Amino acid sequence: MSKALDELKQYLETVNHYIRATNLLYWDMKTKAPALGLEGHTNTLTYFSTEAFRMQTSDELSSLLERLAAPEELKELDDMWTFVVKRMKRDYDRNKRIPKDLYERFVRAQAEAGFAWEEAKNASDFSVFAPHLKNMITMTKEITGYTDPDKEVYDALLNQYEEGMDSATIDGIFEDLKKELIPLVSQILSAKQPDDGKFKGVFDMDAQRKVEKLLLSYIGFSFEKGTTGETEHPFTMEFSSKDVRVTNHFHEDMPISAMFSAIHEGGHAIFEQNINSDYDGTAAGNCTYMGIHESQSRFYENILGRNKNFWIPIYDKVGELLPQFKDITLEEFYREINHVRNSLIRTEADELTYCFHIILRYEIEKAIFRDDIDVNELPALWNRKMQEYLQITPSNDAQGILQDMHWSDGSFGYFPSYLLGNVYDGMYLDKIEEELGSVDDLLKEGRIGEITKWLNEKIHRYGSTRTPREVLSAVCGKEVSAEPLIRYFKEKYTALYGIQ
Amino acid sequence: MSKALDELKQYLETVNHYIRATNLLYWDMKTKAPALGLEGHTNTLTYFSTEAFRMQTSDELSSLLERLAAPEELKELDDMWTFVVKRMKRDYDRNKRIPKDLYERFVRAQAEAGFAWEEAKNASDFSVFAPHLKNMITMTKEITGYTDPDKEVYDALLNQYEEGMDSATIDGIFEDLKKELIPLVSQILSAKQPDDGKFKGVFDMDAQRKVEKLLLSYIGFSFEKGTTGETEHPFTMEFSSKDVRVTNHFHEDMPISAMFSAIHEGGHAIFEQNINSDYDGTAAGNCTYMGIHESQSRFYENILGRNKNFWIPIYDKVGELLPQFKDITLEEFYREINHVRNSLIRTEADELTYCFHIILRYEIEKAIFRDDIDVNELPALWNRKMQEYLQITPSNDAQGILQDMHWSDGSFGYFPSYLLGNVYDGMYLDKIEEELGSVDDLLKEGRIGEITKWLNEKIHRYGSTRTPREVLSAVCGKEVSAEPLIRYFKEKYTALYGIQ
Repeated sequence: MSKALDELKQYLETVNHYIRATNLLYWDMKTKAPALGLEGHTNTLTYFSTEAFRMQTSDELSSLLERLAAPEELKELDDMWTFVVKRMKRDYDRNKRIPKDLYERFVRAQAEAGFAWEEAKNASDFSVFAPHLKNMITMTKEITGYTDPDKEVYDALLNQYEEGMDSATIDGIFEDLKKELIPLVSQILSAKQPDDGKFKGVFDMDAQRKVEKLLLSYIGFSFEKGTTGETEHPFTMEFSSKDVRVTNHFHEDMPISAMFSAIHEGGHAIFEQNINSDYDGTAAGNCTYMGIHESQSRFYENILGRNKNFWIPIYDKVGELLPQFKDITLEEFYREINHVRNSLIRTEADELTYCFHIILRYEIEKAIFRDDIDVNELPALWNRKMQEYLQITPSNDAQGILQDMHWSDGSFGYFPSYLLGNVYDGMYLDKIEEELGSVDDLLKEGRIGEITKWLNEKIHRYGSTRTPREVLSAVCGKEVSAEPLIRYFKEKYTALYGIQ
Repeated sequence: MSKALDELKQYLETVNHYIRATNLLYWDMKTKAPALGLEGHTNTLTYFSTEAFRMQTSDELSSLLERLAAPEELKELDDMWTFVVKRMKRDYDRNKRIPKDLYERFVRAQAEAGFAWEEAKNASDFSVFAPHLKNMITMTKEITGYTDPDKEVYDALLNQYEEGMDSATIDGIFEDLKKELIPLVSQILSAKQPDDGKFKGVFDMDAQRKVEKLLLSYIGFSFEKGTTGETEHPFTMEFSSKDVRVTNHFHEDMPISAMFSAIHEGGHAIFEQNINSDYDGTAAGNCTYMGIHESQSRFYENILGRNKNFWIPIYDKVGELLPQFKDITLEEFYREINHVRNSLIRTEADELTYCFHIILRYEIEKAIFRDDIDVNELPALWNRKMQEYLQITPSNDAQGILQDMHWSDGSFGYFPSYLLGNVYDGMYLDKIEEELGSVDDLLKEGRIGEITKWLNEKIHRYGSTRTPREVLSAVCGKEVSAEPLIRYFKEKYTALYGIQ
């Protein structure tokens, strides 16, 4: 083995110890640590994340990567290490261009904006957040000028979360969705809505926890390579492909919420658990493309989990754990988990109206970075678009523009990846039916394992080594297109709501 | 502040980050990590514990302590830092005398002996463990020769776990116990035993978890400064006084087991939660005297928890959580939690026969280190003593000499601290009744908080800054004596078993 590669491996081993400690402290703070213990954990977390950052931006790493990127070294590396060295060098060079004091100011501004956002949301007062939002926008532009000097700012941001994606492509996709789905949603909202009375009441929390385990096992989450926790907001985190954790939040009065969080986070986790374990601890492992990642969580949550057939093999078991479900027919349950509502909050939206929550945010981000719109005009713009797409206007900003925290930490360009995930899912669905046959039949017969295996082999195992466009090309042989998703929505919802 | 002190504080801060990471990894491995994730955690744990050990034995630390221990520096330090510097210097000097290669051989031998012990226990074959036990004894003697050249080996070992304690003192205490308690146990075993039929059956695990929380809260465990977990064997661990965690193990068929584990570990935790928080992260915080520590867990478990009056204010609540207890009267419950049995396993023993499980081990350890007994003779010695003290002989070594893991990692001299804890408890009980009045009355009236407050003020807050003898002297104004414990046992058990 090349001496430089050996040194890089050792170097990564130490960085990974710091990252593991940082992640575990974070996990523990969210799931377990007592209130007064948080400060001690935070201090140690700060120490290790600072050490990890220092090592990831050190001159020592730079010269190691320099040596390995030389042609005579590079040609000796296997495919994975070639990818890792190139990826690390690219990221190193990009991050190194950010002036240190700018980066530090940005980290501080993120924290301040986070507090301001929380205060603004609680008071439903956008003016508290506005100056911080403006500052985050300015600093984001400044940083992007260093990291991606040749790119238009918003395209650079989109590319950060979904490599190879740009606003020209997304514009095309989202316009197609709007054209077809605005009228569909409008028809649905005028149609007869299902009765949700049976889903109101108190549902035992311990029983809900057992349903979570049932669902995770059923979709293929490995408890040998993963575990669960409880947090305010559900999330997935991984230490390696062999230790991937999902969290959930149980609500006594909303049993369906935790079920679909379990399936959603389970989808993220199944992805991570099935990445080639040789990639563990390198830039090849752990998928960093947000659209591709969401495409997996949403495939399980929506394409599979909101299909009636998904539930046929397990619905009786759910009823055994949650006896109130014995009085709910599978048909009633199916109607409720696909109940289309013009609601205000993105994270509570159904599969179909969810699209508009994202399109609206994407259009506002474009207005920010392309049209230089004044931040004070944003709440009105938000409300106009909500009315246009979903025929509803928030009564206050907490239920409108202040609902998400993403902009407070400068994650502009992140939102579109959620919807790109759905769009990819339409394409995968076509391909799976072509190769494995009817998904309805597979699910009805309890053969969901075959679908998971297909996803493992076509997508998961590659981790980060294939970019989103490479995934689509290899899996579907096509460029990204919203057509399959639109077709899926139309077929499903015209049948569900009896629309001609 | 002195420059050297400032440097020491910064040095400790870094060591403490490593220790916190090590502890958290351990906690996570025991409570949460999935099977295949253990290897990754183990590697990082090894890295951080090695780093912590390196820093704790470095020349840099040595010269820092050297500077601070100089009279002109020492006189500038406050009481706590004076204690910390002296204690760290003493431990540093003692550990430094162990040759590095001997220490490394010892750590390897510990691991090997651990595996051999497990194998031997599973096969109930002492011969598998015997050569490793012999090796641990030899190496322990060798190491003690370096750390405590002026002390007799077994006294040096006792002193390590309970500073200031020696075999002359313990001999006196344990002989007193034997003289009085052997006849008492014998009388009890011939008396009428309570019927334990109502404690057999299946007891809901989630309900048991709720009872654990009830008991912890009731005795004064703070959930703001602590949390719970589930593990194979219950334990207590702390990150600081502000984050102290207890674990438990729930058995469907043994509801009483988890209740008393909760009270026992809760006692350890209440101690740690109430140490002066200024001591956090120093040798003054976190009590390192095992007898004193056990005296707290056992005070809650036995003196309070096995008193009928303890249960009066909460017994109905237990019945609400575990409905089978509604059919068990408080008197029946009280009889069962004080049911004296001549059983073979230490960790399952009642409060009274427990004494003999310890005395037996103490006498065997003395035979090992003082009489140089051949290890092959130990099983027979064990069995003879079991018969003498408890009128029972193990049918195999797994239920006899192989039952505990302590000797496999060289923890000779640890066992006596368990019983010393009980002995101290008798003394505290006298003093509390003198200062606060009848403990029966306090418990009956739900005033357990006053007892906890007394323990907080007299014992807990001092952490490690008072040695066991100093604690007894300050709290009870007396030298250690078994008389109060013997009196407590006699009064309680003659009444319980109707013995004249």
